[in-house]
This record gives sequence, C-alpha cells and structure tokens, in this order.
Amino acid sequence: MSSFAVRTDLALEDRERIGGSGGEIRGVVLEEEEKEESGIKITRVKIETKNGAKCMGKPMGTYITLEAPALTEQDEAYHREVSEELAKQLKSVMPNVEKEQSVLVVGLGNRDVTADSLGPGVADNLFVNRHVVMEFGKAAYAKGKMHSISCIVPGVMAKTGMESAEIIHGVVKETKPDFLIAVDALAARSTRRLNRTIQVSDAGIHPGSGVGNHRNALTKDSLGVPVIAIGVPTVVDAATIVGDALERMEKESGLKLIAAREHPQAMSELNNMYVTSKDIDETIKRLSFTVSEGINIALNMEAEA
Amino acid sequence: MSSFAVRTDLALEDRERIGGSGGEIRGVVLEEEEKEESGIKITRVKIETKNGAKCMGKPMGTYITLEAPALTEQDEAYHREVSEELAKQLKSVMPNVEKEQSVLVVGLGNRDVTADSLGPGVADNLFVNRHVVMEFGKAAYAKGKMHSISCIVPGVMAKTGMESAEIIHGVVKETKPDFLIAVDALAARSTRRLNRTIQVSDAGIHPGSGVGNHRNALTKDSLGVPVIAIGVPTVVDAATIVGDALERMEKESGLKLIAAREHPQAMSELNNMYVTSKDIDETIKRLSFTVSEGINIALNMEAEA
Amino acid sequence: MSSFAVRTDLALEDRERIGGSGGEIRGVVLEEEEKEESGIKITRVKIETKNGAKCMGKPMGTYITLEAPALTEQDEAYHREVSEELAKQLKSVMPNVEKEQSVLVVGLGNRDVTADSLGPGVADNLFVNRHVVMEFGKAAYAKGKMHSISCIVPGVMAKTGMESAEIIHGVVKETKPDFLIAVDALAARSTRRLNRTIQVSDAGIHPGSGVGNHRNALTKDSLGVPVIAIGVPTVVDAATIVGDALERMEKESGLKLIAAREHPQAMSELNNMYVTSKDIDETIKRLSFTVSEGINIALNMEAEA
Amino acid sequence: MSSFAVRTDLALEDRERIGGSGGEIRGVVLEEEEKEESGIKITRVKIETKNGAKCMGKPMGTYITLEAPALTEQDEAYHREVSEELAKQLKSVMPNVEKEQSVLVVGLGNRDVTADSLGPGVADNLFVNRHVVMEFGKAAYAKGKMHSISCIVPGVMAKTGMESAEIIHGVVKETKPDFLIAVDALAARSTRRLNRTIQVSDAGIHPGSGVGNHRNALTKDSLGVPVIAIGVPTVVDAATIVGDALERMEKESGLKLIAAREHPQAMSELNNMYVTSKDIDETIKRLSFTVSEGINIALNMEAEA
Repeated sequence: MSSFAVRTDLALEDRERIGGSGGEIRGVVLEEEEKEESGIKITRVKIETKNGAKCMGKPMGTYITLEAPALTEQDEAYHREVSEELAKQLKSVMPNVEKEQSVLVVGLGNRDVTADSLGPGVADNLFVNRHVVMEFGKAAYAKGKMHSISCIVPGVMAKTGMESAEIIHGVVKETKPDFLIAVDALAARSTRRLNRTIQVSDAGIHPGSGVGNHRNALTKDSLGVPVIAIGVPTVVDAATIVGDALERMEKESGLKLIAAREHPQAMSELNNMYVTSKDIDETIKRLSFTVSEGINIALNMEAEA
Repeated sequence: MSSFAVRTDLALEDRERIGGSGGEIRGVVLEEEEKEESGIKITRVKIETKNGAKCMGKPMGTYITLEAPALTEQDEAYHREVSEELAKQLKSVMPNVEKEQSVLVVGLGNRDVTADSLGPGVADNLFVNRHVVMEFGKAAYAKGKMHSISCIVPGVMAKTGMESAEIIHGVVKETKPDFLIAVDALAARSTRRLNRTIQVSDAGIHPGSGVGNHRNALTKDSLGVPVIAIGVPTVVDAATIVGDALERMEKESGLKLIAAREHPQAMSELNNMYVTSKDIDETIKRLSFTVSEGINIALNMEAEA
Repeated sequence: MSSFAVRTDLALEDRERIGGSGGEIRGVVLEEEEKEESGIKITRVKIETKNGAKCMGKPMGTYITLEAPALTEQDEAYHREVSEELAKQLKSVMPNVEKEQSVLVVGLGNRDVTADSLGPGVADNLFVNRHVVMEFGKAAYAKGKMHSISCIVPGVMAKTGMESAEIIHGVVKETKPDFLIAVDALAARSTRRLNRTIQVSDAGIHPGSGVGNHRNALTKDSLGVPVIAIGVPTVVDAATIVGDALERMEKESGLKLIAAREHPQAMSELNNMYVTSKDIDETIKRLSFTVSEGINIALNMEAEA
Repeated sequence: MSSFAVRTDLALEDRERIGGSGGEIRGVVLEEEEKEESGIKITRVKIETKNGAKCMGKPMGTYITLEAPALTEQDEAYHREVSEELAKQLKSVMPNVEKEQSVLVVGLGNRDVTADSLGPGVADNLFVNRHVVMEFGKAAYAKGKMHSISCIVPGVMAKTGMESAEIIHGVVKETKPDFLIAVDALAARSTRRLNRTIQVSDAGIHPGSGVGNHRNALTKDSLGVPVIAIGVPTVVDAATIVGDALERMEKESGLKLIAAREHPQAMSELNNMYVTSKDIDETIKRLSFTVSEGINIALNMEAEA
C-alpha cells in the first residue's frame, strides 16, 4: 500500500494497517478491553487460520497488547499495576498454568545498545531458583508449589559468532525446560506506541523482527517446547516515521502526496537511523524492571493461593 | 521559510539553508577546503557583522566544520588523522597559542543519556595535569613549555539543581583559567552529518543549543575568558527529519507540498523524539576518544617542537 | 601503640582504640543507645575540647554512628528503617532545622572505583529542586515550607586536575547555600563495620580521610558555612587487617607477638591493597540508595507536619 | 602445614609452597625462563603423574605462568608485548596448532562484580568470525587459513539458575567446536602476584577455583574436547593474607607464632572478605584487553605466514 517499508513487530499495528477502522479480516479475531482503574487497554489479536497469518504477515497465534499510556512516567504504583496486568495476561497464554513446571527465560538483545537492551535488563531483575530447587528441593522456599526458573542472556551474533537460536537450542536440550519466555525490544510503526506498549504472544519469535534482528526462529516447532514472547517497542524506523507523517498529512490536507512518496531517494539517508524518545536510557531501566516484575509475579505460584 | 522548526547547532547548515548554493550573505565569509589524503572537508564560516549574526541566527565568530565521512567506521588510523586535523583547527582559534596557559575543559551533557554523553566521555579520556604542575612544577614532566590543564563535568540541571553555567562560573572564579574549551553533543538538521562532523568555534556556547539544552551562555562576555566550543551532532529532531524529507520530495517530484506542511498536527507526536544512528552507543565511545585525543594533541606544546 | 598504621575514619573506632572498654577520655563524651525494633545501635561521640581532639586525632564536633548489622542484606523494609533513622540523626546535627534553607549535597569520591563510588551513587538518587524553586517558586510543589536542594559530584583530582575542595569553594561562592552535606566512602579499622555502619558528623571533612583521600578540608572554617559529613566504611587497609588479626591472636593466645610486629617488611607488599567484601558492587548500590533516601527524608520539611 | 586455608589457583604457588626453594617433587617438572627484553618470567609446571597431581592438589597437565611486573602499569607497548608472549604460550598448549579449527572462547565470571569480571571483559574485546565464515566462507576475509571463532559469556548461577558448565555443555553439543579456551579471574595466595600474572593451562577448569567458584568441571573428560584455561589472579582471600603475613613474621623474627595461628576465631570475621588492589576497576579493564589481544593474536593464523 505504501512505498515505504512499514515495519512493525506489533500485531496490533498490522491489524490497524490492514483492517482500517472496524473492517474484518477472515481468520483474525480482535477483542478489546479497557481496565477502568488503571486505564490500561488490552487488545487481543488471534490469528486463527493460515489465511489470517498471510494477511497479517505474522504466524498463527494469540497476540495480546497492553497499552499503558502512563508507562513512560516515573510512577512506581502505576508500574506495579502494569506488572500485575502483564502477569495476568502472561498466565493466559502459559501452558498448563496450574502445574509446576520448569521455565527458561531468555533475555534477547544487546546489553551495549540502549534501545536493544530490554531483554538483558529484564534478565538482571529476574528471580531465578532452578539451582536452589535442584540442590535443596522446594523445601528451601517453604512453599507448596513452585516453578523452577532459569534465565539466559545469549548475547548478539556480532559478539558471539553464534545465532542466539543456536545457544538457546543447546541450553534447551541440556536443561529441558517445559517452556520458554523470550523477552526482546521491538520496533513499532507509530511513535505513540513507543515505551508504553507491551506485547505478549504464544507464537514465539520469528526472524526479522526486533530492534537488532538478532534472532532465528524461537518457536515450538524449532525448539520442541512452547515459546511465549514478550516485547516492548522502543524504536521506530526513521523511514517509517516519514512515511507515516506523509500519510497523515495526506489525510489532513486532502492533497495526493503519493507521487512524492515514489521518490525513495529522499529516504535513502535514513537507513540505519531510528527514532527514539529522548529519555530512552532511563525509560529502558524502568521498563526492564516492570516487565521482570510481571514475569516474577506470573511465575510465583504462591501468589495464587 | 519552512513551517517546521528547523533546528541545527551547525553554522554550516544555517549557511546552506540561507544562502542556497553559492549565494552570498553580507557579513558572512565562507571558506572551503578538502584535505586530499584524509578526505576531510574543512568549512570555515566567519560571521563578521551583527547583520551576519542576525541572518544566521548565531553570534559573531568563527565556526569551523570538519566533515569526515569515515568517522562512523571503526578505523583507528583514520580516527587518529581526524584527531590531528581537529588539533590543528583547534589551535587556529586558541588565544595566544604559543604561550603557556591554563585551560579548563568542560564536558557538558548527561552521562546517563547516550546521545548526550559526548562531553562526559571526552572528559574521561582527557589528559589533565594542573594538580601535578601546581604541586611539583613543570619539572614533573621534563618539558620546556606546557599548558596547565584541568577538566570538569558539571552534570545536568535535573540532577544538580544548578545551571551548568553557575557551576562553571564558580570554578572559573576559583581556579582562574586563561580560557575554556567546552565540549557538547549537538543537534543537526541532516542525518548525513550525524556522528561524522565536528564543529569548532570561538563563539562560545549559547542557550538553546545542544542535545539536552543544559546550558546558559558560556561566552567571553559571561565568563571573562575566551570560550572555544567543540561539538559533534549526534541527533536530529524527529520533526526536522520529516520536514526535510518533505522538502526533498517537493524538489524531486515537482509537486507543491506546502499545503501539507501547514498541518502541524501530524507533527505533534514527534515531540521529545529524536533520530539517531542504530550504533549510537558504540559511536559515542569512539567519538569521545577521537575528540579528546584532538584536544590532548592541541594542548601538548611539546608536539610542536 | 601498634607499629602498624591503624587508620580509621570512624570516631567510634578511635574511641574504642584509645579508651579501651569503659575508660573515660577528658573532653570526649560518649552516649550509646540501641533501637529496640530495628536493632540499630546509635553511638554519639562528642569531642568537646582541644584536648579531646588531640587524643582522638579528630577535630572537635559530634560524631554519630549508626550500626545496622542487617544493612548488608537485601531487605527493603529494613533499609527503609535505616534511612529513617539516618534522617533523624541527620536532623539532630543540621543547623536551624526548622527554617527553610538552601542545601548543597556533595557526592565525593570516584564514580569509576567501586569501593569509592558511594558519594556519586548517593548523588544519582538524590531529590534536587533548587532549579525548580528558582524558576517557579515553592508554589511548584504545593507545600508550605521547603528547602532548596542542589547537588554536585566534583570528581577526583586525577581526572579533574583540581582539588574537590576548589570546585566546591567555587560552587559555594556562586550559589551561596546555607549549609553543605558531604557524602563519602570511608576506611574502617575493623571488617566487622564494613558496609553496615553510617557515620554522621557536624565536624566537616578533613584531609587524609576517605577511601581515595580525594579532599582538602571541607569545613565551616574553610567554606564559611556548616558542613555535615555522612560516611560509610567500605574498605579496610590490608596492613590494618593483618595488624588487627595479630592483636586478637595475642589476646587469645597469651603470647607476646610484639617482636613479630616490628618486622614491617612483612607488610610492605600490602601497600595499595585493601580488604573489601566480595559483594561490594551490589552493596554499594544498595547503600547509595539507603543513604540518599535518608537525606531525602531529612530534607523533606512536609514529612514533619 | 598451616592452620589457615591457603587457597590459590596458581600451580606456581602450589609448587612454591610444597617444594620450598629447589626441592624436587616426583611427577612434577619445573622449567623457568626469563625474557630478556620484556622482563617477563615464564614458569612451566608440568604435573606428569597421579602422584604429582595429588601432591600439588591440581589435576595432571601443563601450567604456564607469565609474570609481568609492569602489567599493573598503564603502558600500551608493554601490554602489547605481554599479549604477544601470551599468544606464544597459548599456542604451545593448543591442539593441532597448524590446522584450521573451530574454537569456542568462554568468558567465565560475573560482569557485575569487578574483581570477577575478567572473563566477560575478555569476551567484549574478542574477535569472533564464526557467523561470517558460516555465511560467506573464508573468502570473506581473503585469508589462506583461518580458525572459526565463537564466544560465550554464560553468566553466574545466582543469575541464571544454571551451572556455567550446563550452558557450555549445551552450546558445545550444538556448535561442536574443536576446542575451548576458558578465561576466568583467579585467587592467588600472594598479593605480589595480583594483576601481574597470567596462567595458561591445558588441564581445563575444575570446581572450587576462581574468584566466584561459578563452575563445575570444564575439562576434556566432561566436554569431549580439549579445554585450555587462561586465568589472572585478581584477589587474595583475606584469611590467606593474614596467615601469610604471620608466616613471614615468623621467619623474620625467629619467633614461633604457631600457637597464635591455632586460634582461628581471630579469622572468622574475614569470611567473605578479600584483598584487592585499590585500582582494581581500571586494572581489570586493561587486563581484559591484554588477554583478549593475546587470544586474538594466537588465533590469527595469518600472523604466522
């Protein structure tokens, strides 16, 4: 539709782009809900058929988006609410949620590139206990039921010489977790969604998405166990933002700017550039904590009793 | 001319915007030179009259720009060439360059915001000797002539509660340097200039420029001693980039897009967003080293013997 | 008494060394108190005369020590208790505690040396408002009474070429605070006190103490305004620890080891070595937060209403 | 022999402790060499029999120690010499050194604990190419012969819930390297060796050594491929240093202090304390670079042509 690459990792944005306002897509179910107290908006996009997957350009599965406008602000109580809502949504896609399981959390991305460091940041704050459970049993925690939690930060290919997926395959074969939770920084199409949107999906992770594209497929097919993906968009491609601004101007002005958009030379210098918020360093720190707390709450079985 | 804020800290870009290609501006002298071996392009903009300053929107003074395309690459030898060229240009605006002097280097910006951390990064790599010279005399270094060099990172107002300028005024009154060199990250208009352009100026530093705007005036007027400014553009305002893309499309397509540009709502969500390169973290580390080496070479009197 | 340098920044340890158990020193008053709930032990050493100062090797003034054994553990609620106790003790030495004042907090030490980074770490977590109060007045915070708070991290001489004291003198003259709070990492004599002891003093800061010795005097005499010092011991000199172990062995074994101690060659290789806890990196992060919260509480006038 | 735990990861120090000066141990061969130009002392301890291994408390294999006194100084040229000597010694224990091979470098230790961060620091500076060789072949580098190099930082058990060895086993099975190079921070017995000694061994890595003890066995037995270990001592246990000082005093004074040493209460508070140099943060950065350069040189086959 547009001559610009319109790249987004958010199923929600694909749905908007394709379906316009209100239109239906065969094989794609959309549910929306707004939490009154917290103002968090939950959108659930279910891609149920191959046709739906083709239309959306994303594999079949459930994609849940939490939009929490105040997430960019420094309000601890609100971040706690978001962590709790994230935990709830996370459990809705976790397999065998009532059963004790072993979980491997994977922090994807590059610790040394701020906008790509969400995964490593989440790993830093995560509660892990697999080593204690293996050595002392659950008794060490005086709890009835508990998951066994481990975590790895595989690093990026330019630094390891290996695909993240190779490292994770190896670790999965060695430690045999029941399922994975993979966390990564995403690219959005709209700056409005940056740093205030969390996507949870049971479709795993597919090549070509994420800020650094540092991944091969991490899916049930490739790994043999379910993979839940958690992502937060932290950047917009610079070319996307120009294309989007142009589209909005077209609408607002009534002019046809399509001819202009067919001159991609104007875009070439935007390669390798991205748009991000001015407070990205501080924001990533806060978001990492909020997401890791969400995982901690979801994996704490006691919290349910 | 444009309905978008076209913000740049580079006199070179102001000159381009106003003068078009080749046009003359009264009170503004332009000299260009290209170094054959290194391919570094030197542009010298001299704003000589009040009229020139008004046209350019920048105070009177000399603004030297080094454009070094390969500066974004990881080539130590090339970075060394750039440091040496920077040292040469720096000396061309240093007062009393042959005389021993005391110099205070100021690393402006926010250590915790990657794109704004050039100043603190330069400070980290800088050679300082004032404390040794004061305690042991020049004899400590077995050199004929040497400057006395000190350095401060004042931090940003949101963390100190003080203007950088207040801190620097205090330190200048207390330690009485002969002149200042202030280093800061800048905003450019064009992404082509990001991370590969260094501006050196004897006009000091003025409110409203820089990535974080964390400064009141640092000038000879306000401080009583000359202030040389060194800056590298590390970001472009997101709104600027859309405006610029639109202008280029206008030229390429022959369409009039001005009506579109008068719909600033399309721009509002770009507030507090900036465009930066994907490898900004690594880039800032390298640039900090290259600029600090340039200062180290310029302030090492022995190097001239 | 000992042939080893017995270096401590804690008045409490000087008192122990000199007075033995229970002995009195003329001009030095000792008060002890243990908080029942928190188990925090408060010791107040008042050096009231010149004779007392000479005996103790420390200037006249009040030195309050909070010993909080659990401070090395990761217990948020306990850290909060310590912050509140610190706030209380801090107010007991603050001048004109009921009056609105302007306060400059100084974070001494080296950000890049873990054991010496307490001051910069405290500065990172501190609430500052001077810039807001100056621009918008107290109305900005909708409070009846409030202090105006600013903060500076002067850095260390090897990186700035200036004494910390020079920078602080300049900033004090420029911004005229009513009093200073200076935070620094200290050296203790006993490893038992590492990372679990906080000393608050109204005697300011004197050359030769602190982990990095990065200071000239910061006192009411030198700066013209009162200086409250807050310190936490993070290291013990390696030579001290050997000397201390020897003394304890002497006591336990009944042997006379003094002759052994007179062979200082055995100590020479301990120069520039210090003893620290294995989790110093994590510990400094937690302590920085606890101390900065203590200052934040003490300087928040509303908290008293 | 001593009532104190005398813990060292250096075979050289075990040899000294046991053999005294000049004494021979059955099954242990000692060779010493001093490089004239660089002043680097090379000691080669070969443990050739089970008896030798029992005496030394270390498994059979070759342990090469480079002692480079100036390694603690900031002298780039000297560090380069050490890197080259390290490369030479590394090749002397590498299997099939003339053949193209695939190598996995493992950076053991904790990135967030300064004294334990040598392994991750070396990984950060390492040249890796496995991903490029796999995608484009050796042609990408225009070289005749080259190794394929990958690298992993497994992290520590407290943060991953897994033994480092589990992660490495998984990655080895998945990527099938011909041999491993494992880098780790070590504990020495003597502060004289801290930060200026590099140990290279073909005996792999065994539980219980290293600063953080964060490892199960990494050996040819456990992994199926040879494991070369590189280590630098960065800490001395605080208890060890007291014991050692006591022994030296005994020698110097002629007194018998053994009775004193049998009072271990005096030592109990030294648990979890270690002795390190005051400039450990800066030192680890430099050492990481020097060791990674040594590995880079050793693995660059072109350098031999």
